Amino acid sequence: MNGAQALIRTLVDCGVDVCFSNPGTSEMHFVAALDTVPEMRGVLALFEGVATGAADGYARVADKPAATLLHLGPGLGNGYANLHNARRGNVPIVNVVGEHATFHKKYDAPLETDADALAGTLRGWVRRSMTPGQIGADAADAVAAAYGPPGKVATLLLPADTSWSEGGVPVSGFHRQQAAVAPDSEIAEAAKRLKAGQEAVLFIGGPATREAGLAAANRVAAATGARLLCETFPTRLERGAGVPPVTRLGYLAEMAEPQLAGAKHMVVAGTRAPVAFFAYPGRPSDFVPKGCDVQVLASPGDDVVATLEALADLVGAPAESARQAAATPPPASGPLTAEGVAATVAALLPEGAVVVDEANTSGLWLAPALAGAPRHDELTLTGGAIGIGLPLATGAAFGAPDRPIIGLEADGSAMYTPSALWTQAREGLNVTTIVYNNAAYAILRMELQRVGAAGAGPKAQRLLDLSGPVTDFATLAASMGVPGVTVQTGEDLTREFGRALAEDGPHLIEAIVPPIL
Amino acid sequence: MNGAQALIRTLVDCGVDVCFSNPGTSEMHFVAALDTVPEMRGVLALFEGVATGAADGYARVADKPAATLLHLGPGLGNGYANLHNARRGNVPIVNVVGEHATFHKKYDAPLETDADALAGTLRGWVRRSMTPGQIGADAADAVAAAYGPPGKVATLLLPADTSWSEGGVPVSGFHRQQAAVAPDSEIAEAAKRLKAGQEAVLFIGGPATREAGLAAANRVAAATGARLLCETFPTRLERGAGVPPVTRLGYLAEMAEPQLAGAKHMVVAGTRAPVAFFAYPGRPSDFVPKGCDVQVLASPGDDVVATLEALADLVGAPAESARQAAATPPPASGPLTAEGVAATVAALLPEGAVVVDEANTSGLWLAPALAGAPRHDELTLTGGAIGIGLPLATGAAFGAPDRPIIGLEADGSAMYTPSALWTQAREGLNVTTIVYNNAAYAILRMELQRVGAAGAGPKAQRLLDLSGPVTDFATLAASMGVPGVTVQTGEDLTREFGRALAEDGPHLIEAIVPPIL
Repeated sequence: MNGAQALIRTLVDCGVDVCFSNPGTSEMHFVAALDTVPEMRGVLALFEGVATGAADGYARVADKPAATLLHLGPGLGNGYANLHNARRGNVPIVNVVGEHATFHKKYDAPLETDADALAGTLRGWVRRSMTPGQIGADAADAVAAAYGPPGKVATLLLPADTSWSEGGVPVSGFHRQQAAVAPDSEIAEAAKRLKAGQEAVLFIGGPATREAGLAAANRVAAATGARLLCETFPTRLERGAGVPPVTRLGYLAEMAEPQLAGAKHMVVAGTRAPVAFFAYPGRPSDFVPKGCDVQVLASPGDDVVATLEALADLVGAPAESARQAAATPPPASGPLTAEGVAATVAALLPEGAVVVDEANTSGLWLAPALAGAPRHDELTLTGGAIGIGLPLATGAAFGAPDRPIIGLEADGSAMYTPSALWTQAREGLNVTTIVYNNAAYAILRMELQRVGAAGAGPKAQRLLDLSGPVTDFATLAASMGVPGVTVQTGEDLTREFGRALAEDGPHLIEAIVPPIL
Repeated sequence: MNGAQALIRTLVDCGVDVCFSNPGTSEMHFVAALDTVPEMRGVLALFEGVATGAADGYARVADKPAATLLHLGPGLGNGYANLHNARRGNVPIVNVVGEHATFHKKYDAPLETDADALAGTLRGWVRRSMTPGQIGADAADAVAAAYGPPGKVATLLLPADTSWSEGGVPVSGFHRQQAAVAPDSEIAEAAKRLKAGQEAVLFIGGPATREAGLAAANRVAAATGARLLCETFPTRLERGAGVPPVTRLGYLAEMAEPQLAGAKHMVVAGTRAPVAFFAYPGRPSDFVPKGCDVQVLASPGDDVVATLEALADLVGAPAESARQAAATPPPASGPLTAEGVAATVAALLPEGAVVVDEANTSGLWLAPALAGAPRHDELTLTGGAIGIGLPLATGAAFGAPDRPIIGLEADGSAMYTPSALWTQAREGLNVTTIVYNNAAYAILRMELQRVGAAGAGPKAQRLLDLSGPVTDFATLAASMGVPGVTVQTGEDLTREFGRALAEDGPHLIEAIVPPIL
């Protein structure tokens, strides 16, 4: 058994059985070894950023990591932005990066990079596996590191000769670290603070945005009168009819400030205290109001749900949480707007859907429209690096093959990693992508005003304008084997979205909408 | 004047007047400042890898750096692979990366990364500009660092408040370091070795692959009998009828070994001694034959041309170099092959074209077919990170607006950065791209055999297969506003290539060819 075979056997025996791959010469033995381990599924991506974003989407819905297979440091570079997003969302990924053979490294061949340092900037786990005898143990350690908690990007650098040499020793399991519940004294302290009622905020994120955590948090809020909010960009937010509700903190200070105004106490569970996404001249970066004290009750790597449940019991909360009532807006009619798209998606949303939201400005109406829609999971842009939506939906379809995947995508973001559509076509994935085509970086038009950038003239505006030419996303999809259609009215969107949901395989619907600015 | 204005003014006054941009919120003041400095041209790319690859292509033909504008660490990640290629080709780039405001960094907002460390792995020059008063001097230093010699990726990290704060002080010039000629003693030593005739190899690269260097090298070879070879992937190789000829060292050991067999002396000028691109089981990584001694006469940062000219004079070379005779094959007829595409390109090549070669396996026939074609520049894949061809051609069109740009592109590589086509359409660039569509990672099929990967079965083969679906590149191009056409015969290629050359603006021709394996 060579090293590559031992690696793949170890991954499979540790429960990692999908590998999103964009291989090159140095990974050819890994590729060849796939046929010797039938349980491992290799999925081809045409660009590394698709592979890493897909691994993120897979793990978010499957609750276990996928592997990637990338081609040396430059391939890691191509996958970097979406690994950044995964890191920020605490999503586990076993990130396998092929490298030059150990004896080849010193020759500084054209593709040589300092891949260890590059991977190190992801602040997860990095190891270079130097022998076939060690690769199994290294892979098991990588899986353990990926799980955390919290979840991490665990990068295993795989020299070609570690792959091809005989002497591989697979390892059949790994030690999974358990998350810790907060100490009783901390829980008691949190209870005391939250009893300040409307002057207190319970701010949740990470593992708390799934049903059990949301239920516990709602119970705490009901018993204490504290305001309940969740982080702006949750990794996976369960929501819809029957699910305990939560309001996300607004992206912009103008939105977040009123949500937090007057708070004297903030208890944080599963995330960090809220900060501004970007700095703006003359505005504070810290969203925590002046005079509000912050207690971090549980970090993303803690047992946030058990901690919240203990807190709920301590404050004498009712056993049952509030639940969201069913309510969906009617589908849009007439000329489409971003608001109309949101209404139509909500009106037609199938039970159990996974909604991938990279709609950016066009997505502002999604949260209210979908609040009372059938139960679904929402995956958001955790790290702010656009270009993850199409890959995330692709990976989610592997992680939840029986669920419909709905991707809501901005035109600007869609152009980062469009080849994810090709993988969707090849694999026949049930992904329906709606691209909001407003022919602009609308969010940047807004930000150009908000940062107070003086003197913005025609040259500046041209850099935020995606018209001239307007990308034809229906045609773009068709070029990669995904049926594409362009719609301009609510009626057309209703018909085409319904058709896409009813038919097997991927679909792309380009919705022409006016820019919000 | 704010920092952004001082930065752009400084760049322009240092001769850097094109900025390939993919901005975000933290770069909005830079964008706004563009309108205050009329000489600076901002070019929008829809993905950072397009911006960095375009900056590379620009500098290769304009002989001066362009700037980039990238969005924080993840944007740098997206641009990383093509910056790696630039680094390997010693191409100067002023790589401006917007960053969070200095006071915002500590909040570890979602897009926060260790961008300094990330940029550091490119082993060029990195500085974080902390005040508007300093940004002008920092920018001038960045331009100086980019020029080298050798050329480098100079990364200027630009906090948002450095941009937006008043107090910018532009700087009007920079000190350009001069390259050094090799010492006389080294030149004399090289002369002695090269007089071994066929037992000696003169191996050139870097600045020596332009006409003056090629002339000097040919004179040396004529006078000494030494074999003349150039590096496998030159940054910019001048060739064609009337240009002093040179043969590139083969990519594969099987090709390179006979070229170097029997050499007892190797004199290297403008590059490094040749090594294998990848390691293979049981094969040496070092291409230098056993028993051959190596003298590095001049590195890429030295004055390689003057050194070679001094060497030519010392060995009593004739004043005139050999020149390539004009000779072009007839254009292909009947069903197309990769060889037929090469012949047709050579037959129709306009004088003064820039040929961007990322055709990979399909490009094997380009070098012989184009050898005697009208004079042209060839830009190759210097760092091995595929996905640079379309951006490189895009940037070259800005660097040489009066020259036709011909991009020869493999189907696999084309899917990394396809949105370069959008920028070509927006800017009306005279770029003609021919995509060789063989529906396969043909080079990996070859490499799978060459590395001796045992047990490669259907799962492995599927990861190297780009059919199912076959991307329709003509339609892909059309979706982004570039006229696209698919051809299957030599006659059709001749007609469509001729039409593309005659018409203004970008064109894409998809040539259906059989895979070589």
